[in-house]
Amino acid sequence: MLRSPIKHCKQCGTAVVYRLPDDGDTKERAVCPACSTVHYENPLNVVGTVPHWGDKVLLCKRNIEPRWGKWTLPAGFMELGETVAEGAARETTEEAGATFEMEGLLSLLNVVRVGQVHFFFRARLLSDQFDPGFETIEARLFAEHEIPWDEIAFRTVKETLERYFADRKTGSFGIHQVDIV
Amino acid sequence: MLRSPIKHCKQCGTAVVYRLPDDGDTKERAVCPACSTVHYENPLNVVGTVPHWGDKVLLCKRNIEPRWGKWTLPAGFMELGETVAEGAARETTEEAGATFEMEGLLSLLNVVRVGQVHFFFRARLLSDQFDPGFETIEARLFAEHEIPWDEIAFRTVKETLERYFADRKTGSFGIHQVDIV
Repeated sequence: MLRSPIKHCKQCGTAVVYRLPDDGDTKERAVCPACSTVHYENPLNVVGTVPHWGDKVLLCKRNIEPRWGKWTLPAGFMELGETVAEGAARETTEEAGATFEMEGLLSLLNVVRVGQVHFFFRARLLSDQFDPGFETIEARLFAEHEIPWDEIAFRTVKETLERYFADRKTGSFGIHQVDIV
Repeated sequence: MLRSPIKHCKQCGTAVVYRLPDDGDTKERAVCPACSTVHYENPLNVVGTVPHWGDKVLLCKRNIEPRWGKWTLPAGFMELGETVAEGAARETTEEAGATFEMEGLLSLLNVVRVGQVHFFFRARLLSDQFDPGFETIEARLFAEHEIPWDEIAFRTVKETLERYFADRKTGSFGIHQVDIV
């Protein structure tokens, strides 16, 4: 889901103009010259999990762009009607077909360049059998030394996995806040 | 910023139809019958602070709707181009004209009914002089027993203030995750 600029008003279809709104706002927005609707563009949340089974974690091989064929943690865009944890659980079911129990928030990552905030929760797998959806080529468990670090799809996934394994050694999990620059 | 349904395509202005997209998505989206653009609607992040000075916290009396005249913590919608902490700092400057130093994340609240996630950080005030912007009638410091609990604008603000004062008594601040139902 890449975002393209707003060209037409979502209310009436008229071509918008970019200008400061009349309400004191200090940022240029897409404003409709016909019906005065102001269109806002804001960061999106991406929600996912670190599913674990013994000393292994579950990774999914992506069957979609971007990063087709690379490995990722189950994650996707948060939807209306759900909490961040509910969204993370939904993505884990959709992408990996895993059965699991949600645990605590592990990482909160700002990806300013693309206007996203990523949240990863730990999730305790209740089975090592998976039934991945169409977005996933293969869902597989990896011990730390087996992780294909050079084939990880996203920086936020790599940062989250590193913190998961580091915390596990200490026996105590934090909530890690990371800015991806 | 209330959201109204998408009626016209942001790319070409054609009236959209609500249907399942062709990419395997399981949710109905606004799809353009002319140019096939799929329009997504996702939760928004609201970012703010608990500015504190000695045993007092800073509240702002709202000069805008909703909840005109009620008291709130400085907070607003996260913008593109900033981290959650940077957005929280920006709102604190805009709404209260405060000088402060950002501290840790205190609360993360899901407000599913309105499709929002709220983040509040602690912020140590460096002065007790404020220069509030047009969105604020008055910025004022309150000790815990002075907080106008019945005049607080939002549930997320009330929940955050309660946790701030409770944590301060223990001397240790957590990251509180709250679902507002």
